[in-house]
Amino acid sequence: MLQQLFSPSVQHTLDLIGIFVFAISGALLAVRKNFDVFGIAVLAEVTALGGGLFRDLIIGAVPPAAFTDLGYFVTPLLAALLVFFLHPQVERIQVGVNVFDAAGLGLFGVAGTTKAYDYGLGLTASACLGLATAVGGGVLRDVLANEVPSLLRWDRDLYAVPAIVGATMVALCIRFDALTPFTSGLAVVTTFVLRLLAMRFHWRAPRAWNRRSTVREDETAGAVP
Amino acid sequence: MLQQLFSPSVQHTLDLIGIFVFAISGALLAVRKNFDVFGIAVLAEVTALGGGLFRDLIIGAVPPAAFTDLGYFVTPLLAALLVFFLHPQVERIQVGVNVFDAAGLGLFGVAGTTKAYDYGLGLTASACLGLATAVGGGVLRDVLANEVPSLLRWDRDLYAVPAIVGATMVALCIRFDALTPFTSGLAVVTTFVLRLLAMRFHWRAPRAWNRRSTVREDETAGAVP
Amino acid sequence: MLQQLFSPSVQHTLDLIGIFVFAISGALLAVRKNFDVFGIAVLAEVTALGGGLFRDLIIGAVPPAAFTDLGYFVTPLLAALLVFFLHPQVERIQVGVNVFDAAGLGLFGVAGTTKAYDYGLGLTASACLGLATAVGGGVLRDVLANEVPSLLRWDRDLYAVPAIVGATMVALCIRFDALTPFTSGLAVVTTFVLRLLAMRFHWRAPRAWNRRSTVREDETAGAVP
Repeated sequence: MLQQLFSPSVQHTLDLIGIFVFAISGALLAVRKNFDVFGIAVLAEVTALGGGLFRDLIIGAVPPAAFTDLGYFVTPLLAALLVFFLHPQVERIQVGVNVFDAAGLGLFGVAGTTKAYDYGLGLTASACLGLATAVGGGVLRDVLANEVPSLLRWDRDLYAVPAIVGATMVALCIRFDALTPFTSGLAVVTTFVLRLLAMRFHWRAPRAWNRRSTVREDETAGAVP
Repeated sequence: MLQQLFSPSVQHTLDLIGIFVFAISGALLAVRKNFDVFGIAVLAEVTALGGGLFRDLIIGAVPPAAFTDLGYFVTPLLAALLVFFLHPQVERIQVGVNVFDAAGLGLFGVAGTTKAYDYGLGLTASACLGLATAVGGGVLRDVLANEVPSLLRWDRDLYAVPAIVGATMVALCIRFDALTPFTSGLAVVTTFVLRLLAMRFHWRAPRAWNRRSTVREDETAGAVP
Repeated sequence: MLQQLFSPSVQHTLDLIGIFVFAISGALLAVRKNFDVFGIAVLAEVTALGGGLFRDLIIGAVPPAAFTDLGYFVTPLLAALLVFFLHPQVERIQVGVNVFDAAGLGLFGVAGTTKAYDYGLGLTASACLGLATAVGGGVLRDVLANEVPSLLRWDRDLYAVPAIVGATMVALCIRFDALTPFTSGLAVVTTFVLRLLAMRFHWRAPRAWNRRSTVREDETAGAVP
């Protein structure tokens, strides 16, 4: 097993922060979709815990952490309550939410990669699972809300690429025996900053080679309803 | 392990009844979505077995009961056949189907909570998994049918809350060492009656605090297509 | 454990071919939905590996093969790259893709059934999991793309039935102790040929009994948007 990167209480606090901000994004989508208070709570839980749940099922860590740590379960409920009563205010501070979400992306990607490696997966598979931990909750959120996952849409700012970079940095550090609190903190910060830059400058990934020049705009609009 | 609540054959019969009525609801949605006979069978299986499958994956009970008990597999097929040949008649007795579905909700919620606790989960996590067992199949059904899960929609009568009440009753009984066939039967009946009352009086959960007063009706209609 | 049907290297090559053609179908749908290059890669991976991943979770073979074999991970990326740069050409050879996809259907159905039986499932459950291995990736692909799974739609040529036939043949061979490279190859070929015939002659499964005569065409069109 890798050495503990952060002290357990620090790691737990970081996890709870990541869970909280992801839950906020799930609850806000639920309000926008006009779900009731129960739907808001479900979407908050799924968004916050879905990525880690998937990772734990894959690596065989059952029951998953989401079902053994009461704090992991209660935190999304608090986020749902907050959004339920204060959602216009929460939406107004959307920029702040996005910044925290970027932090969650970094934390989950790095923690997911490390945990997967601890359970015996190879380096590439660990980085993939780190990515899945970071983005999986958001994909489940969008599937339950019956929307095309924003992860996959070309008209959204880069989201996965920063997490891929961070997870790859961790995998390389493990490979060269250089994983320390400093280097993994660096991976978190790199993901965080890349995501902020992607939002600031609206970086987007290219679409298929021949499509970009030939597709008509109205066709584009129709294809992603 | 908790003592067996009901005799194995009684428990098995109750399980099969729950599976059957859930399968009917899946098959009816498949007919409404104009799926072919195979799609009807798939949606019946997924609706009936999806919740238990999710629970078994989480608690590490693999292979899940859905794949080891032939009766669990064949029952949804019978429900699918019935709907395939008689669906106008089945729809006409929709009220009857709803009553059985309410019974299934109670049975699955209580059985799911008990099984999760047997596999070592905490009380809160067990109640959550009981809820997931009861409602999970319906969510998977709606996701496969490409609809917003009716569980999450504000314009549907309360569905999850009765199951939450029942699962919580079981968890409290376990906590205070009072889980008997009588008390768990009481939890089933409570869920059942609450769901019937919710349907009779169209109980609904509130939407987000500020939304209810400001949202326009046409906006509402558009938000949940 | 059953005897190895094919030599390991032959089996591995067959697996990679199946993964490649399924990945092509996922990547093409991603292009049609106007996803970016990252979405194309994700949909290729999910389509190619989703069915086997589900099977491995059910039988408790964790971590799943998709995360332990680097070739399984890289192959869909190659397919995604190919589609990214050459998708008009790939679409033009759609017939060729369909033929390979039919081969993948046969290979995955037979291999999935065999692997499930190896892990101790019953014959019926093994055949079901073989079917799920063959069609599961396509269902996940359609769910992520926010479409009704083409598996369930009545207006598509038979897809699951050929896989059911092949998986059932394997289960019967196991039952009567007649599973050899020859008989399982026969099951693959049967699936393959049935699927080709279904595409050639547009075989479709019937819809619910009373619906077919009474449904109006415009209603039909609306029901499966």
